[in-house]
Amino acid sequence: MRNIRLTLAYDGTDFHGWQRQPNQPTIQGCLEAAIERVTRTTSRLWGSGRTDAGVHASHQVANFKTDCPIPSTNLVKALNDLLPPGIRVKEAVEVSQDFHARYHVKSKTYRYRILQAPVCSPFLWRFVWHYPFALDAEAMAEAARLFEGEHDFTSFAAAEGNRSQEPGVRSQNSEFRIQNHEPAEREMRRKIFISRLVRRPRTSMLIYEVRGSGFLHHMVRNIVGTLVEVGRGRLTPADIPRILEARHRTLAGPTAPAQGLCLVKIEY
Amino acid sequence: MRNIRLTLAYDGTDFHGWQRQPNQPTIQGCLEAAIERVTRTTSRLWGSGRTDAGVHASHQVANFKTDCPIPSTNLVKALNDLLPPGIRVKEAVEVSQDFHARYHVKSKTYRYRILQAPVCSPFLWRFVWHYPFALDAEAMAEAARLFEGEHDFTSFAAAEGNRSQEPGVRSQNSEFRIQNHEPAEREMRRKIFISRLVRRPRTSMLIYEVRGSGFLHHMVRNIVGTLVEVGRGRLTPADIPRILEARHRTLAGPTAPAQGLCLVKIEY
Repeated sequence: MRNIRLTLAYDGTDFHGWQRQPNQPTIQGCLEAAIERVTRTTSRLWGSGRTDAGVHASHQVANFKTDCPIPSTNLVKALNDLLPPGIRVKEAVEVSQDFHARYHVKSKTYRYRILQAPVCSPFLWRFVWHYPFALDAEAMAEAARLFEGEHDFTSFAAAEGNRSQEPGVRSQNSEFRIQNHEPAEREMRRKIFISRLVRRPRTSMLIYEVRGSGFLHHMVRNIVGTLVEVGRGRLTPADIPRILEARHRTLAGPTAPAQGLCLVKIEY
Repeated sequence: MRNIRLTLAYDGTDFHGWQRQPNQPTIQGCLEAAIERVTRTTSRLWGSGRTDAGVHASHQVANFKTDCPIPSTNLVKALNDLLPPGIRVKEAVEVSQDFHARYHVKSKTYRYRILQAPVCSPFLWRFVWHYPFALDAEAMAEAARLFEGEHDFTSFAAAEGNRSQEPGVRSQNSEFRIQNHEPAEREMRRKIFISRLVRRPRTSMLIYEVRGSGFLHHMVRNIVGTLVEVGRGRLTPADIPRILEARHRTLAGPTAPAQGLCLVKIEY
């Protein structure tokens, strides 16, 4: 079997997230349907991870196995001809048998955009959190840096716990361990390499970028919601270490809206 | 009555053009409905001109008269709260009684974007003509300049003739004269101040910008369709004066797709 690695981009607005669902348009669902039509066989597509409804990707990686002999460069055009314009295959490459888009991830980078302008452009509303109220960007930038390093992110994980186990997946990475209910101290720890917030006055944007070994469900959006609480003066940068240490979801800020979030890089 | 001038922006993708239509979402229809809810009276909204289905505006101007005492700055938020996110009021200003968004236009500027990249980004497809085939941008730029000056644009007007007369409008501008069937030499003449095409290699874009006293129906899209014929080598820059002179629609290129076109400036 050939192992094909796809590099993807999508506008998540009109999809119910990555994961295939019956009777709902999803990124995985659209891609698997297109792959089936092109290769004439059903294939399971593995993404580097699932993105939630409304979350975008400018760089997502996935792989599938196939016996179909179509050259991988031709696959790009064949799949794009069948996909909705909001999902694009940027590249298709044949890779070694052992490559797995999900288990071999070394780092993921997300970008979150907050628009501070009084009116949100009709060309931007799908891709930003429109927050036209005063925010202390310096305090937010200071707080953002405090997420760097290895921490237990229980306070920033989705309150409902992490997602249900996918059928037929064997544990090979830390995200899976969470779902298997291994010891709590271990499963909620993540290493954050970069966590920075910058202000772009020309476009009235606050841009938060975070690169880490992996992320818990809703973790980036919960960090952003907490940074906005800092920006509003409801929390201070000094509260961040305290919130991390407490390991309790209720201490951090609310979950920021999905549409500001974009997966921008996957490294293997 | 107060006379309110609105500055607008919209993503035309999901609308059936500017003009109000029964049972179809249109820009004018959505705005008039929002104005009616905010002011509690029905008002006729005048745009600087109508844009076709799928055409965008980053700067469109319109005006309406009302007895409603709401301060015009508050109107911006009140209307935006009711409008779909693809239509935004950027500014509302009370202006003198005699201002008319349509009749007093001195110039309009349109921008047309052609994307040459092999794959069209999911974040761009609504706003560009994706044309991933070879084009001679230098020949196109040379041809673009030849539209500057005053010309009879019969060869670049919509083949079906111009639009039907709007009810209750008295002739005050040249666009209206067309609809009144005044002598052909006069009604099809337009003055083009700037007509330029530039290549942006970093984004794989060709950007055509045109500023003129007014435009016939489909005129910008027909010019772009003709420039692409030049880019493909089917026409040469030297053909442009010949096509203008012939005053016959069939000699020019096809109508470029609506989604690449954006109204970017109105001057009074």
